[in-house]
Amino acid sequence: MSSVKELDEYFKKLKADFPIFSERPDLVYLDNAATTQKPSAVIEKLRHFYVTANANVHRAVYRLAEESTALYEESRKTVADFIGTAPEEIIFTRGTTESLNLLAYSLGLSGKYKSFIVPLFEHHSNFVPWQQIAHTLGLKFYPVKIHGGELFLEDVEAIVKSCEKPFVFSMTGLTNSLGYRAPFEAVAKLVHSAGGIFVLDAAQLIPHEAFDFAASDIDFLAFSGHKILGPTGIGVLAGKKELLEQIRPFQYGGEMIDKVGEQDTTFAPVPYKFEAGTPNIAGAAGLAEALKYVKNISYEKISKHIENLTKNAIEKLSVIPGLTLYCQKNCHGIISFSHENIHPHDLAELLSRLSGVAVRSGHHCSQQQLKVLGVSSLCRASFYLYNTHNDIDKLVAGIQDALRWFS
Amino acid sequence: MSSVKELDEYFKKLKADFPIFSERPDLVYLDNAATTQKPSAVIEKLRHFYVTANANVHRAVYRLAEESTALYEESRKTVADFIGTAPEEIIFTRGTTESLNLLAYSLGLSGKYKSFIVPLFEHHSNFVPWQQIAHTLGLKFYPVKIHGGELFLEDVEAIVKSCEKPFVFSMTGLTNSLGYRAPFEAVAKLVHSAGGIFVLDAAQLIPHEAFDFAASDIDFLAFSGHKILGPTGIGVLAGKKELLEQIRPFQYGGEMIDKVGEQDTTFAPVPYKFEAGTPNIAGAAGLAEALKYVKNISYEKISKHIENLTKNAIEKLSVIPGLTLYCQKNCHGIISFSHENIHPHDLAELLSRLSGVAVRSGHHCSQQQLKVLGVSSLCRASFYLYNTHNDIDKLVAGIQDALRWFS
Repeated sequence: MSSVKELDEYFKKLKADFPIFSERPDLVYLDNAATTQKPSAVIEKLRHFYVTANANVHRAVYRLAEESTALYEESRKTVADFIGTAPEEIIFTRGTTESLNLLAYSLGLSGKYKSFIVPLFEHHSNFVPWQQIAHTLGLKFYPVKIHGGELFLEDVEAIVKSCEKPFVFSMTGLTNSLGYRAPFEAVAKLVHSAGGIFVLDAAQLIPHEAFDFAASDIDFLAFSGHKILGPTGIGVLAGKKELLEQIRPFQYGGEMIDKVGEQDTTFAPVPYKFEAGTPNIAGAAGLAEALKYVKNISYEKISKHIENLTKNAIEKLSVIPGLTLYCQKNCHGIISFSHENIHPHDLAELLSRLSGVAVRSGHHCSQQQLKVLGVSSLCRASFYLYNTHNDIDKLVAGIQDALRWFS
Repeated sequence: MSSVKELDEYFKKLKADFPIFSERPDLVYLDNAATTQKPSAVIEKLRHFYVTANANVHRAVYRLAEESTALYEESRKTVADFIGTAPEEIIFTRGTTESLNLLAYSLGLSGKYKSFIVPLFEHHSNFVPWQQIAHTLGLKFYPVKIHGGELFLEDVEAIVKSCEKPFVFSMTGLTNSLGYRAPFEAVAKLVHSAGGIFVLDAAQLIPHEAFDFAASDIDFLAFSGHKILGPTGIGVLAGKKELLEQIRPFQYGGEMIDKVGEQDTTFAPVPYKFEAGTPNIAGAAGLAEALKYVKNISYEKISKHIENLTKNAIEKLSVIPGLTLYCQKNCHGIISFSHENIHPHDLAELLSRLSGVAVRSGHHCSQQQLKVLGVSSLCRASFYLYNTHNDIDKLVAGIQDALRWFS
């Protein structure tokens, strides 16, 4: 199972698990950094929940509610096992964006931290919350400069030394715009040696790379279900228990309280104090099913296959005249590009219309990263496990067709 | 179609649309105030989205993303039509709890309001956010006293006159603990005459009663999908456009921005400035399907049927010796009760175990309401359209069996 061809054959068969590709046989889906397609097992899990076990969780003693609660807590355990931590360190959120906003509000409103730091290559969801909440609460906000699409440790070192303390540093593990595998382990060490809190936006990393939270130097980790074969509307915030216990709740409501007085409220223990209101129960069950699916295939195979696809795409795209690739040296699963003769939006539209190839175009929610590159828009192809080398050929042929059509 | 029996026959047939009742033929589901069951049309809509149109919204020009975006925006339009407003006044949230937290944070952090006011009978999700965020931001928090389970307009009048201004008043349309149809229209008038902002928690009201937002005196309205036949993880905040434009965003991230600078960000127009991150696209489509289902039956039928069920249940429960009903005079679809010989938890457990009847027991996320009643726990039966008069008979027989078993 180690040759490029064998892996490709393996994943080609597996594509049958994803019903959208039978429904739309001409679809070449290369926008996986935005969202992934769902295997039948995940779609069926949603149906199964609603048809057999739908009830609200935690609050009742009748059998249906007990089953629903058990399913929800088993889902939390599956997520915890998947990233190597304990269930009490897993909070279900709406997605990465809510996870990061939760942290920015809770840490910011704690009154304990004086500054927030984030690199300029971040997705807006890991940039704007820190920037805006810092300004609202009168904290300092430090963007860390980048070099092309890369982060230099010397810049991190300088800023964590000079910033107002205590501080919070939040960064991505893999940039959504350029697929840059960032050196977050080394950054976490620098942050901790300066006494800071380290937050990892793992929205792009988790679909591609195994993670061991307990063994890591990460204080908080955020990711979304829908980018790793799960449903929309569900995500995760993992946090070290002692920190989760220290920080204040974000949203308030049912299930996160202990006692409610006229003017005072006490809260439930972690993780419940962060889960206000009826959770996305079906979503949590669907996410757990997605993670089981990934685990069953193994990260080793997935990672290797995506590496093969990326390498193949870079090779074939590199020889198209006039095409510029915005790849970092360790670019993984995501390739951004532009062509001198055609606007990225027009190229993406023609790719879809002429060849059924779905790629993203625009600023990829990372305007500061694109500013550093000196462009306002790029095309981006991003791969996931059901993509095959045939999809790369279709992308390449599609670009050539689009260029011919446009010229 | 007006007799009690005719309506019961109509809804008895309709029960076949809800597959959980075929899967669990012995289930008598009377916990609809916590969450409702889902018709096949809603469950199928989720599958259909993932199998035919799954892509991220707004951000791309390829066909699949255009279809997904169109579906999401059509869902917004369906919700807007359903409550009588324009799509730009509809924000998709995770549920009522997020809708209310969004408001408490956004209004509170605006620096414009000096106090928050809520009645004591509110669900914790419409009490604790206002209490906690007021205290965090140094605003006044005024709970309005209640009489049994009722709100007196004279108390509202006194408090809106004497409170620190400007102020925000938030209340429910129908209490989740006692099914009290609150006089929110009259309260809204009082609030507006004193220059306040009026927020309606319609989580329990919307499943039971038609609403015309544009014609109403309501500034903001919140409800959840899962309490009106929709999926978990999706809810709505409706707001008057001029107010939505004035208030600040809550969560920050992708899709809600216009331009992102190193230290400053400008935001998208309403409603997008409140929708950070990938939305629950499937959830929005599922909610729209649920609302179409309700509309197709008509509120008139639903409301009348639930009124009949409530009346029948009150009559039959009233004659059980030792049973106390906590009903307000205009109680609708929700009946709380307790028995002198058995703790509510034991009664609920026995109802489930012996008779398959699912009722809630506990404080119903409304500790202050229960404190006013002088109890710490109650049983609650709550009805929705698929319930029949046969379910009421099973509830009554189930209570009698539980009492016999317990004695």
